[in-house]
Amino acid sequence: MQTSNKAMKLSDSLNPENPREVGERLHQFAAELFPICRSITGNGLRQTLALIQKRIPLQINEVPSGTQVFDWTVPKEWNIKDAFIKDASGKRIVDFQKSNLHVLNYSAPIHATLPMAAIQPHLSAIPEHPDWIPYRTSYYKEDWGFCLSQNQLARMRDAEYEVCVDSTLADGSLTYGEYFLKGKSAEEILVSCHACHPSLANDNLSGITVATHLAQILSGKELRHSYRFLFIPGTIGAITWLSRNRETAARIRGGLVLTCIGDKGAFHYKKSRQGSAEIDRAAAHVLRHAAPAAEILPFSPTGYDERQYCSPGFNLAVGCLMRSVWGTFPEYHSSADNLEFLDPVSLAESLSVCSEIINVMESNIYYRNLSPYCEPQLGRRGLYHSTGGRAPEAEINARLWVLNLSDGQNSLLDIAERSGLPFSSVREAAELLHQNGLLAPIDKQPG
Amino acid sequence: MQTSNKAMKLSDSLNPENPREVGERLHQFAAELFPICRSITGNGLRQTLALIQKRIPLQINEVPSGTQVFDWTVPKEWNIKDAFIKDASGKRIVDFQKSNLHVLNYSAPIHATLPMAAIQPHLSAIPEHPDWIPYRTSYYKEDWGFCLSQNQLARMRDAEYEVCVDSTLADGSLTYGEYFLKGKSAEEILVSCHACHPSLANDNLSGITVATHLAQILSGKELRHSYRFLFIPGTIGAITWLSRNRETAARIRGGLVLTCIGDKGAFHYKKSRQGSAEIDRAAAHVLRHAAPAAEILPFSPTGYDERQYCSPGFNLAVGCLMRSVWGTFPEYHSSADNLEFLDPVSLAESLSVCSEIINVMESNIYYRNLSPYCEPQLGRRGLYHSTGGRAPEAEINARLWVLNLSDGQNSLLDIAERSGLPFSSVREAAELLHQNGLLAPIDKQPG
Amino acid sequence: MQTSNKAMKLSDSLNPENPREVGERLHQFAAELFPICRSITGNGLRQTLALIQKRIPLQINEVPSGTQVFDWTVPKEWNIKDAFIKDASGKRIVDFQKSNLHVLNYSAPIHATLPMAAIQPHLSAIPEHPDWIPYRTSYYKEDWGFCLSQNQLARMRDAEYEVCVDSTLADGSLTYGEYFLKGKSAEEILVSCHACHPSLANDNLSGITVATHLAQILSGKELRHSYRFLFIPGTIGAITWLSRNRETAARIRGGLVLTCIGDKGAFHYKKSRQGSAEIDRAAAHVLRHAAPAAEILPFSPTGYDERQYCSPGFNLAVGCLMRSVWGTFPEYHSSADNLEFLDPVSLAESLSVCSEIINVMESNIYYRNLSPYCEPQLGRRGLYHSTGGRAPEAEINARLWVLNLSDGQNSLLDIAERSGLPFSSVREAAELLHQNGLLAPIDKQPG
Repeated sequence: MQTSNKAMKLSDSLNPENPREVGERLHQFAAELFPICRSITGNGLRQTLALIQKRIPLQINEVPSGTQVFDWTVPKEWNIKDAFIKDASGKRIVDFQKSNLHVLNYSAPIHATLPMAAIQPHLSAIPEHPDWIPYRTSYYKEDWGFCLSQNQLARMRDAEYEVCVDSTLADGSLTYGEYFLKGKSAEEILVSCHACHPSLANDNLSGITVATHLAQILSGKELRHSYRFLFIPGTIGAITWLSRNRETAARIRGGLVLTCIGDKGAFHYKKSRQGSAEIDRAAAHVLRHAAPAAEILPFSPTGYDERQYCSPGFNLAVGCLMRSVWGTFPEYHSSADNLEFLDPVSLAESLSVCSEIINVMESNIYYRNLSPYCEPQLGRRGLYHSTGGRAPEAEINARLWVLNLSDGQNSLLDIAERSGLPFSSVREAAELLHQNGLLAPIDKQPG
Repeated sequence: MQTSNKAMKLSDSLNPENPREVGERLHQFAAELFPICRSITGNGLRQTLALIQKRIPLQINEVPSGTQVFDWTVPKEWNIKDAFIKDASGKRIVDFQKSNLHVLNYSAPIHATLPMAAIQPHLSAIPEHPDWIPYRTSYYKEDWGFCLSQNQLARMRDAEYEVCVDSTLADGSLTYGEYFLKGKSAEEILVSCHACHPSLANDNLSGITVATHLAQILSGKELRHSYRFLFIPGTIGAITWLSRNRETAARIRGGLVLTCIGDKGAFHYKKSRQGSAEIDRAAAHVLRHAAPAAEILPFSPTGYDERQYCSPGFNLAVGCLMRSVWGTFPEYHSSADNLEFLDPVSLAESLSVCSEIINVMESNIYYRNLSPYCEPQLGRRGLYHSTGGRAPEAEINARLWVLNLSDGQNSLLDIAERSGLPFSSVREAAELLHQNGLLAPIDKQPG
Repeated sequence: MQTSNKAMKLSDSLNPENPREVGERLHQFAAELFPICRSITGNGLRQTLALIQKRIPLQINEVPSGTQVFDWTVPKEWNIKDAFIKDASGKRIVDFQKSNLHVLNYSAPIHATLPMAAIQPHLSAIPEHPDWIPYRTSYYKEDWGFCLSQNQLARMRDAEYEVCVDSTLADGSLTYGEYFLKGKSAEEILVSCHACHPSLANDNLSGITVATHLAQILSGKELRHSYRFLFIPGTIGAITWLSRNRETAARIRGGLVLTCIGDKGAFHYKKSRQGSAEIDRAAAHVLRHAAPAAEILPFSPTGYDERQYCSPGFNLAVGCLMRSVWGTFPEYHSSADNLEFLDPVSLAESLSVCSEIINVMESNIYYRNLSPYCEPQLGRRGLYHSTGGRAPEAEINARLWVLNLSDGQNSLLDIAERSGLPFSSVREAAELLHQNGLLAPIDKQPG
């Protein structure tokens, strides 16, 4: 039970007494990553992975453009130096140097002077939020374009403008980062986040920073399961990884896609396609106790990379942890999803919830009651009336539940669910009873 | 997939843009049938079947009185010419010629002059609705009697009256109509309605007219399942048919008893005894989307002929579709259940719901995703951003659901239920994906 | 079916028309038992069993102190003659003769004159209810002590007092009573109540009196199951019995622990660990119909002796019937749980509910419909239109349900649950149909 003792300490590393401090560290890392112009390929993505690599020993993978990955092909590599729209006076009225959202992400290069009528179809704005810049992409249909605020758009006239996207789209490679932590078991827990969005804070950087810190917490611990962290471009990155790692995928016991977990909204956990896998139950259990406003959502085939992990050929037990659900908050995919929108305390809470879910996965074992006929006499072992400042009733209650249900058919999570007690209380009770010779762990894996 | 394409057109035949027009045709047929004095045997029933036969090639069956059918015996044939109560002045104060409800249905003949005290026990009225004539029967206990309005009853004095029921009860036969439509499969869908009530519109004619039109719509279509329409006297007719068709009954995959489906009330579907048979799920699904006020009722052994189809020896997957539930609306079994009570638009809606349920049964097949590892790249097949005036999101959502769940374990109805999408969207998505080589139908029957 | 006919009469013996009369008899017995100073061993317990023995032929068992019973040891025998606290004037300010609650139950002997400071740690009171005496015990840690009202405590000064507990704690035996009623089957129904509390009415005597009367009602009846009534000291008594009767325990088909069933609160039934055993379903069914305010509680490993019966090594189908739940009403474990707190009508209702639950267990058999193809013709057997003053509809409805579901897979309780009808109606319908040759009982045991 050394493993679970070490796992128990996972959450201690989070400094729960000062979530703001932990959150500030997470926010600071996000601020470092924020200015980079990422896309699904190219140097922005590489720079991002390099900054993560400063914290955890990330393995960087490069997959050449043109590689067939299932039904898809790894696309060309995109790199960009500059982009602008200049008016007749030569003034930059839309300027990539001010915000990398101004360029249609993955835009083909262009440099021309064109009448407004020819430019218009290549412009995107958000009329309801006149000073926000939208985030738009065109990965799989070659196109050029600009995103600008409605206010900027309103100032443009029926005149000629110089448009320039100084980008390259050329054979190169798709880059992704992978960090593997070996545990006792070959079975793996996957933590996956996309790293392809440019200056967007909640929809990208929240997942990257929390996953990175989570990997740091787990590093050096004696772990029951193995852990794999993926920092990948959305969709094509997950498809590429799965296509190159089919055998590894078969060992994934459970996983979490992390996305939009840095805003102040309530938690949402979207279940895996399997629906009641251990990871689904662990996430629901942790959120029920740690975040009563949390909502558990059924699986659906729209969303982030759980779409790929949960495709029918894989059907992995991978759910998606969010705070506000993508697409439902106005700041989503706009310049308003910025560093102010990212809340340090929320980031720290998200990290804590992730750790707790992993705690459950690490410690969810089966015990057998060695004294199963009637209750053992807890009193003569000093286990019936607890001393000290903690309320005795809750502790004794947990011990009775663990003894009663430890018939070899109930894991600690089963006991926590049936009793309504938090997993940590159930685990502590089990460890105490084990120390007192009343329980023995048995070699059985949760279903 | 020709079958499902043809089945898809079922509802088109209903002219959904003008339900009033369809409804008027149904109502007109009901008006033709209304005056006939039907009973569980006899010429009224034969006339009724003859009028149905003008529309669909009904096979007429005659089963001799005295035939043993399970625990029952086919009763004598009842025919009636006239019936009345005359006062001392010779005036008809209750007159069968004005309404065939005035005679106790299946009344034995009588012609006598009797004091009021001797007549009284043979009279029925409805005190709460003083101008309505009740509908009463005495099939299995030989008796004579009259039904009259409470107002008529109140005018009768302690005097002698001439009572006459000019009927015959003699060996003859029980008549029922049957229409069989052969489909690709020997498995059958049953549509059954009773045709034994005299001038009652909702409780009888609504089912007859909708079933007849449904049979017309299905005629000439290339069908997956075979279809059997029964127009039978209630209880004894179903028992007689089942007793003569035990092998056929074993091939019934699902069925609907249609009763009281012409009034303006909300839909009610009473589930089969099996409770979650395909027909039960299809009916619940169609009503959820087409008629949100609809209620799904559990099976109970009271009601119409589903009692017999769901008896434990058969336990067929036959439910009962109603609008207002029999016995719960005041007009039930009275002269107020007349042609005005029958609403053309409601009849058209009922026909449409029946067609939709059959659409589901026809098209509820299994597909296998031929590209099950990750999502296939819909974009390069023009399936990701839809064009035209329809909202693209819903269509793409349906495609993703179909791809995700088409693992050979989920039928289209399973997918519609899990996704919350209407069956038609799921089926259209599946057909489009099939045309694009992404899905293949598999040879598996819904459980 | 003689068995079920006799069982049917169980509740008749309760004189349901005058529950107050039955309740007064129960209350009178409680009043006889009330003054006795019971504990988990000793003469108070023996006297109590002797009074029960006057009503039912109880077998008295004595188990020597020091006997090992699973993880426990049978404790010493405790007997007490007197106890008091005297002030300097020699006046008894706390007097065992006035209430046996004044002594810490199982208190070690003491006789000394001590300063208040030395006495204080040995005193218990209830500040919120200043005139109530608490009930406290110290069974497994040798200690002496007194319980007194807060008012008494407030009058004590910083002075010396003479304290005396004239008790003995010596090798002897643990006593319990057992009454076995042999039925046709070796399978047993267990009724267990604790008999170790001193002058507390609801928490002890309610269970004893109801169990005793229930045993009287069952005596001399021809029973389907065997019955075992246990009157035992709480916890150690159940453990002792189970340790000596492991083979018998394996034959227990279901059981009830009776506790706190004499107050005016709503019924609570706590399910067995199995959760949906026949006894659990029977209790829930009876309460749903007899006591709509009743609540069904999930199993938990805290409570009374169901803790032992439901320990994982036994996992017996034993639930706990209560009115107000122990520990939730202010009178619990205090002198306010007295004879006034015990309500005669509530006692009678509790006896009636227990009888009804046993009625269900006795009569819950399977029948097979001998006429399973379509409905049999009830009318010609006089079973379709009932005569007499009882409403025919409900009776016919019950007959149709029994016929429809008697396919060999549904017990009478299954039918009662699915139909929503009370068990008694379903059983009566089944017996009538059986008499008419339409049903045959089959040899199958519920679950």
